[in-house]
Amino acid sequence: MKRHKLLNVPSIRRLPSYLQVVKGAAEEGREYISGTYIAQELELEAIQVRKDLALTGIMGKPRLGYPVQELIHAIERFLRWDIDQFACLVGAGNLGQALLGYQELKRHKLHIAAAFDVDPSKIGKMVHGTRIHSLSEFAAVKEQEGFEMAILTVPPEVAQEVAEIIVDHGIKGIWNFTNVKLKLPSHVVVQQEDLSSGYAVLSLKMAKFAR
Amino acid sequence: MKRHKLLNVPSIRRLPSYLQVVKGAAEEGREYISGTYIAQELELEAIQVRKDLALTGIMGKPRLGYPVQELIHAIERFLRWDIDQFACLVGAGNLGQALLGYQELKRHKLHIAAAFDVDPSKIGKMVHGTRIHSLSEFAAVKEQEGFEMAILTVPPEVAQEVAEIIVDHGIKGIWNFTNVKLKLPSHVVVQQEDLSSGYAVLSLKMAKFAR
Repeated sequence: MKRHKLLNVPSIRRLPSYLQVVKGAAEEGREYISGTYIAQELELEAIQVRKDLALTGIMGKPRLGYPVQELIHAIERFLRWDIDQFACLVGAGNLGQALLGYQELKRHKLHIAAAFDVDPSKIGKMVHGTRIHSLSEFAAVKEQEGFEMAILTVPPEVAQEVAEIIVDHGIKGIWNFTNVKLKLPSHVVVQQEDLSSGYAVLSLKMAKFAR
Repeated sequence: MKRHKLLNVPSIRRLPSYLQVVKGAAEEGREYISGTYIAQELELEAIQVRKDLALTGIMGKPRLGYPVQELIHAIERFLRWDIDQFACLVGAGNLGQALLGYQELKRHKLHIAAAFDVDPSKIGKMVHGTRIHSLSEFAAVKEQEGFEMAILTVPPEVAQEVAEIIVDHGIKGIWNFTNVKLKLPSHVVVQQEDLSSGYAVLSLKMAKFAR
């Protein structure tokens, strides 16, 4: 049950924002960047930044900080963003179609190889360069494209049923954008995405700090 | 700079998922729920759950746990989800339109009162019940609707410019879905949303745990 505790999830969640700051520094032609600078840019504590970056195996140099290019590679390697990964998207509604066009994922080498829906008016169409297939073709398309990850953006009332179908066909990881707590075999990894979390933080920050 | 450190952001980010588990228990007619049960449902440590819940001011009862209805109200009160809040959405592209239809936000009493874009073909249209206005009407619409929060979903190359315009017109909090680190006066709260974070966690979990 607790196996995922082996990963430091809050630290991992912060690493993409560090990567962005470091890439910004690279674009400005900087060779070194300090943990303190990253911390200031992101309103974090420097000690936290250094602890998080240590996860990637990189060491800063006294007085200089981290070499920018090495740091970029270390973070990308740690996050496995240095290798192409493939996923499918299941449920080509509003959110699903928005994710098909979301450039950030492509920049991190996540490619959505195929999308699936049950609505006949959508099947066969291309959305942001990705073809929408009938869910009944899932096994055939998966065999051809080879993805093991699925982005789940179906309506909540069918989420469990659809998740079971795609897991039966060999999906091993689900990025779950529905608000349904999926009950799946323990070999399947589920990452729950809830945009409400960001709203919760913003709402509290505004109550405390906005003037 | 560090003022936001006063908030325990990782704990706040977890509270919405607790709320969902507790509401599930309420639907099943349960009167009490234990921290251990919530922890098991979400693959967290029970001590972490109890610490996070303590933020809301609620105390569990020995052997019984937390009273379900009180816990729901305590979390909602703490997150300020017990009061209606209003926001606008700026940039009615793919992601913007998806957010206009995202039911979770409405369930937490966040109402998107108006949307803005610069594309003449979109202006005047209704998307998921919200009217799209010209950005040039921002001041007038804001005065009428009274929102102080903006959801920013414009293309990155105009994000800074648009953010400055809406802040000049009195926006005090921005939920930033662009990948741009906004430079704004310190009285403005910015919450950076990066969906890549969820992908980072999923990708690492799959590498370690998926079979």
